[in-house]
Amino acid sequence: MAESWSVLDTFEPNFRPLVVIELAKGTKEETVQWFTKRIVDKKANGGAQLLVKPLVMENGGENIYLVGASHLRLLLGAESVGLVKECNDNSMRTFTYSSRKTFKDFADDNHNFLTMAECQYIIKHELENLRAKDEKMIPGYPQAKLYPGKSVVRRLLTSGILVQIFPLHDREELKKLRHSWYGRVKVGYQPLDEIRCYFGETIALYFGFLEYFTFALIPMAVIGIPYYVFAWEDYDKYVMFATFNLLWSTVILEVWKRICAIMTYRWGTLLMKRQFEEPRPGFHGVLGINPITGREEPVYSSIRRQIRIYLVSLPFVCLCLYFSLYVMMIYFDLEQWALDYHEENESNFSSLMLFVPSIIYAVVIEIMNRIYRYAAEFLTSWENHRLESSYQNHLILKVLVFNFLNCFASLFYIAFVLFDMKLLRQSLATLLITSQILNQFAESLLPYWLQKRHKKRMKKRMCSLKTDTDLSLVEQVNLEKEMGTYFGTFDDYLELFLQFGYVSLFSCVYPLAAVFAVLNNITEIYSDALKMCRVYKRPFAEPTANIGVWQLAFETMSVISVVTNCILIGMSPQVNTLFPDSKMDLILTVALVEHLLLAIKFIMAFVIPDKPRDIQIKLAKLEFESLEALKQQQMKLAAESLKE
Amino acid sequence: MAESWSVLDTFEPNFRPLVVIELAKGTKEETVQWFTKRIVDKKANGGAQLLVKPLVMENGGENIYLVGASHLRLLLGAESVGLVKECNDNSMRTFTYSSRKTFKDFADDNHNFLTMAECQYIIKHELENLRAKDEKMIPGYPQAKLYPGKSVVRRLLTSGILVQIFPLHDREELKKLRHSWYGRVKVGYQPLDEIRCYFGETIALYFGFLEYFTFALIPMAVIGIPYYVFAWEDYDKYVMFATFNLLWSTVILEVWKRICAIMTYRWGTLLMKRQFEEPRPGFHGVLGINPITGREEPVYSSIRRQIRIYLVSLPFVCLCLYFSLYVMMIYFDLEQWALDYHEENESNFSSLMLFVPSIIYAVVIEIMNRIYRYAAEFLTSWENHRLESSYQNHLILKVLVFNFLNCFASLFYIAFVLFDMKLLRQSLATLLITSQILNQFAESLLPYWLQKRHKKRMKKRMCSLKTDTDLSLVEQVNLEKEMGTYFGTFDDYLELFLQFGYVSLFSCVYPLAAVFAVLNNITEIYSDALKMCRVYKRPFAEPTANIGVWQLAFETMSVISVVTNCILIGMSPQVNTLFPDSKMDLILTVALVEHLLLAIKFIMAFVIPDKPRDIQIKLAKLEFESLEALKQQQMKLAAESLKE
Repeated sequence: MAESWSVLDTFEPNFRPLVVIELAKGTKEETVQWFTKRIVDKKANGGAQLLVKPLVMENGGENIYLVGASHLRLLLGAESVGLVKECNDNSMRTFTYSSRKTFKDFADDNHNFLTMAECQYIIKHELENLRAKDEKMIPGYPQAKLYPGKSVVRRLLTSGILVQIFPLHDREELKKLRHSWYGRVKVGYQPLDEIRCYFGETIALYFGFLEYFTFALIPMAVIGIPYYVFAWEDYDKYVMFATFNLLWSTVILEVWKRICAIMTYRWGTLLMKRQFEEPRPGFHGVLGINPITGREEPVYSSIRRQIRIYLVSLPFVCLCLYFSLYVMMIYFDLEQWALDYHEENESNFSSLMLFVPSIIYAVVIEIMNRIYRYAAEFLTSWENHRLESSYQNHLILKVLVFNFLNCFASLFYIAFVLFDMKLLRQSLATLLITSQILNQFAESLLPYWLQKRHKKRMKKRMCSLKTDTDLSLVEQVNLEKEMGTYFGTFDDYLELFLQFGYVSLFSCVYPLAAVFAVLNNITEIYSDALKMCRVYKRPFAEPTANIGVWQLAFETMSVISVVTNCILIGMSPQVNTLFPDSKMDLILTVALVEHLLLAIKFIMAFVIPDKPRDIQIKLAKLEFESLEALKQQQMKLAAESLKE
Repeated sequence: MAESWSVLDTFEPNFRPLVVIELAKGTKEETVQWFTKRIVDKKANGGAQLLVKPLVMENGGENIYLVGASHLRLLLGAESVGLVKECNDNSMRTFTYSSRKTFKDFADDNHNFLTMAECQYIIKHELENLRAKDEKMIPGYPQAKLYPGKSVVRRLLTSGILVQIFPLHDREELKKLRHSWYGRVKVGYQPLDEIRCYFGETIALYFGFLEYFTFALIPMAVIGIPYYVFAWEDYDKYVMFATFNLLWSTVILEVWKRICAIMTYRWGTLLMKRQFEEPRPGFHGVLGINPITGREEPVYSSIRRQIRIYLVSLPFVCLCLYFSLYVMMIYFDLEQWALDYHEENESNFSSLMLFVPSIIYAVVIEIMNRIYRYAAEFLTSWENHRLESSYQNHLILKVLVFNFLNCFASLFYIAFVLFDMKLLRQSLATLLITSQILNQFAESLLPYWLQKRHKKRMKKRMCSLKTDTDLSLVEQVNLEKEMGTYFGTFDDYLELFLQFGYVSLFSCVYPLAAVFAVLNNITEIYSDALKMCRVYKRPFAEPTANIGVWQLAFETMSVISVVTNCILIGMSPQVNTLFPDSKMDLILTVALVEHLLLAIKFIMAFVIPDKPRDIQIKLAKLEFESLEALKQQQMKLAAESLKE
C-alpha cells in the first residue's frame, strides 16, 4: 500500500479516483515527494494512509494528482468524521467500524455503502487533518513555516504550492441526477435524497428550502391575484389579506424547522456531533499557546480584533450605508425629473421613461451589492477571525445589513416619508422584477454560456484525434479543473432573503409580489440545478443539520414586516375613513393591533414544537440507549468494586 | 453487610445516618422485611446496596428507619448520578471511581470528599432507582401492583405505605451555617458556597438570585429617591429615569446569566449531564410499551391529555381570570365609595378610610392567589403529565398568568382606562407594601412561631428526665419528622417575579417602589434563611444549572414594562406640553421610541454573551479533551484494523 504512489503507471484495479489535487506548475520534486509520502504514509506514522496517483498529461506536466482510498480506509474514516447511517432496524446511528454489520446495506464487498460524496468528504477531512510532525517548514520552501500540529494542506494552500483540491464528478451518476432533477418537464418534487447523495447536505438543504419556500408562497400568490385583478381595496378584504400574510409567514418559518428536522434526521446530520473547530486557513498571528487545546499555534489577541471591528469595519459599513442613502436620493431626483418630463411631453415614450429611473436604480443596487460584497469579504478576512463560523457570522451580518438598506431604503422612504402608495407599488414591482432578471442572468445563464463555449474550445483542442464522445479521465479532470468554483449557498440564500423582504414587507400594497416570487423560484430551481450540474466544479459535501443563521434572518424579516404592514394599513384611505373624527384613535388602534400580532407571533413560535413528535421520540430513544449503556457499564464496575 | 438491618441495636461505628424513611404505622412485617431486604441487597441482585437501621422509639413503634451507605458505595453512587467535582488541576470533571485519585481533596479515608447533601442526594437517587424485578405487587399489599422496572419507592409512596423520606439535618454544620448566614448583623454577601454545600444548588441559586437582584435594584432605588423627595417631574429627568430603568432591567437579566454560569461552573452543575427523566410519581395510565425505552410502563394518550388541557383547564383558568376582574370591579366600587365618604366627612378617619379599599383588595388578592394555586396544582396533576418537568411548566404557566392578571389588572385599569396617576401611585404603594408584609408574615414568621411552640411542647414531653440540651438522634428524628416540608423555590421566585413587576411596570410613576423592594429583599434574605434553617425539614439537594423558566418569565416582564413605561411617559402632562398642537405626533413619537427601545433590548440580549469568556474557554477545553480522547481511541482502532 505504502509504495503505491511511486509505482506510477501501473494499472490498479482497486483505485477509484475521488479527489483531484492540483499543485502549482514547477513545484519542486522534493516537495512533491514529501507531500505524497505524507498522504500515503501509515496512520501510525502520522500519515493519512490514502492512495495517490499522478495524472499523466499529454504535455508531460505532472502537477495533477488523483487521490483515492481503500474501502477499509474509507470505513474507518467514516467513523472518525462521525458519519450517521441507517441501521437494519431503521434507526439512525453513528457509524463505527466495529458495529458495521448492524448497518443497512452493509456488506464487506459492497463498495456503495458510502456514497461517493461521503467518500470525498472523508478524504477531504483526512487531508485537512494531515498535520506537521517535526517539520519546521515545507521541504523545498523555507519561507513556508510549519509547527507541530499545523495542517499541512492548509499551509500548502496559503503558500500557493497547492492550487486547488476538488472532488471529481461521477459522470454516470450526474447524468441520472440531471435527468430526474430537471431533465424532463414534470410537475413534482425535486429528488432531494439523490441531490443529497451527490452534492451533500448543505446544498440539498438549500434546494429543499427553495422548494418549500416556493410551495409556501403559493397560497399568498393565489390569494393575491384576485386582490390585484379586481382591485379589492375594501377595508375588510384588505386587512384580512395582510393578517393572513403575517400569520402565514410565521407558520411557514416554524413549519420549515420541522420539515428540516425530518430531512436531516433521514440524512443523519441531525444526530451528527459537532467536530472541534480548527482555525480557518486564512487565520494568522504570532505563535502562542491556545488556552483550549494547550497546543502551540498562532494566537491573535481578541482586543486587537475588536479594535479592527469597531474602529474600521463599523465606520466603513456606516459610510457605505450613507453612500447607499445618497444614491437613493439621486434616484428620487431622477424620478422627479422623469415625472416632470412626462407631464411636459405626455407621449408613449415619456410614459415609458417613467420606468427608467427605477430600472437604473435596480441595476445600480445590484452592482453596489456586489461591490460591497467584495469589500465585506476583504474586511472580514482582515479582521482575522480564528474560526470559520465566526468569520461567516460577521460576513453575513455585514452583508445583510447593507443589502437590506440598499434594497429597501427607497421603498421605506416612499412609503413612510412621501406617503405615495402608487409610486411604492411601481417601485416595488420594478425593483423585484429587475433584480430577479439580473440575478437569473448573472448567476446561471452567463456562466453556463461561458462554460459551454470553453468546453467546446477544449474539446476541439483535445479530442481532435478521437471520435468517441465519452471523455477519458484525463479529459474529465482537465475540463473540471477549469470550471468555476461554487462558493457556497450564501448568495442563493441572500437572494431568497431579499425576495422574502419584497414579498412580506409591503405585501398589503402589492399582492402580486408573491406571484412573481413563485414564478421566479420555479425557474430558479431549474437554473440553480443547471448551475450545480453543468457550470461549477463539484463542491465538497458539507454535513449540516439546519440552514443556520438564515433561519434567524428570515424570522427577523417577518417581525419587521408585521410593523411595516400595520403602518401601511393604518395609512390606507380605507382604514382612515373608519376613524373620520380622530387620527389619534386610528394610531392607537394600529399600535394595539401591531402589539397583538407580535405577541401572537411569539406565542406561535413558542407553541409550535421545532421537531415533529416522532423525531423527538427517536432522538429521546437514542439518548436513552446511550445513557442506559453508560449505566450498565457503571453497574458492572460498581459490582466489581463492591465485591472486594 | 447484608444482615446489618436485622442486627437491631448493635453499635456500628461506620454507620452514619443520612436519610430517614417513615413507614405508615402498622405496616405489615412482611412488607418491611421485603423492603429493607431490597435496600441492602447487592447491586448484582437488583438491590440498592445501602445500609438500613431501624430507629428504636420509646413507645416501641418501629416505623422509622435510618438509611446510610458505606464510603465506597457513595463514591460509586456519585459516579452513577454524574457528579462533577474539582480536580487537582482546578478543572471541573465528571467524577468516576477509576479516576478518583485525580480529584482535589480525595483520599480513601477522607469521608468529607462528598458533602452530606451530596451523599443524601445519592441515596435518594439510589432509592428512587430501586426497581421491581419480577414482583407483581408489594408483598402484603396485593392492591399495590408492580411491574418490572417500576420504582419501588414511588409505588410505596403512592400507596401510602411509605409516609415520607427526608434527609437528616447535621446540627453542627447547621449551627455554623446559621452563624455565618444570619447569626450576626453584618454587611456582606451570603455564604453561597456553604449554603450550596448544605442545601444543594437549587436553593443556593435562589438565594444567589435574591441577593443579586437586591444589589441590582439598589441603583434604581438610589436614583429613585431624589425623584420622590424633590418631586422631579421635569420632562428630561423623568424620561431619563424611565430609560435608565428599562435598559438597566435588560442588563441585569443578561448579567445574571453570566453570574449564574460562574457559580454553577464552580459548583459543577453547569457541566452535569441531564439524566434520563423517569415518569413522575403521580403519573398513571394503562400498561403499554413506552416507544422510547421499549419497556412496559403506564401509557396515557397525549390526545386525552390535550383534551383535558384545552377543554377543562383552559376554560377554568379563563373563568378564574374573569372572576379576578370581577373582584377588581368591586374594588373600584369600594374605592369610589370611600372617596365619596371622604368628601362628605373630611375627617382624619375618613382620609384613613381612603386606604382601606386598597388594603382589603391587597389582602383579597393574596388570598385569591393562594386558593388559585391549589386549584392549579390539582388541575395540573389531573392533566396527568408524564414528566415532572412538563408538569412544572404547565403549573408555572397557569399560576403566572393568573397572578399577573390578579396583581396588575387593577393597576393597568387605573393607568390606561381611568388615567388617574395619583390613584395609580397610591394603589401601587398599597399593593406592594401590603403584599410584602403579608408574604413575610405568612411565609416565615408564622411557621417559625408554630414550629417554636411545637418544639417546646416536644421538648417538655420528651426531655423531662434529661438535663443536657443536646438532642439525641431519636429526639432529632422525632422533631424533624414533624417539621413542615419545603415545597421548592416556586413561591419564592413567584414573589420576586411579582415584585419585579411592581418595580418595573410602572417605575416612572412611583420611583420609590425600588426602595421598598430593596428593603423587603434584605429582610426577605433573613426570613427565608430562617425558614430554611429552622422551620422546614431539610430538603433534598437538587443539582441545577440555572433558574430555568423564571429567566424567561423575568425577561417577558421586562419586555412588557418597556411598553407600559412608554405609554405612561406618553400620557404624562410634562410630555404632553411638548406637543401642544398635535396628539398624533406625540403618539407617533412614543411608538417610535418604544420600538427603538425594544430593538435595543433585543440587540443587547443578543450581543451580551451568556457565559463569561473564561467559562467559555474552560467548557471548550473540556469538549476538546473529550473529542481528543475519542479520536485517540479511534486512531488506535484504525491502526489495528489497517495492520492486517
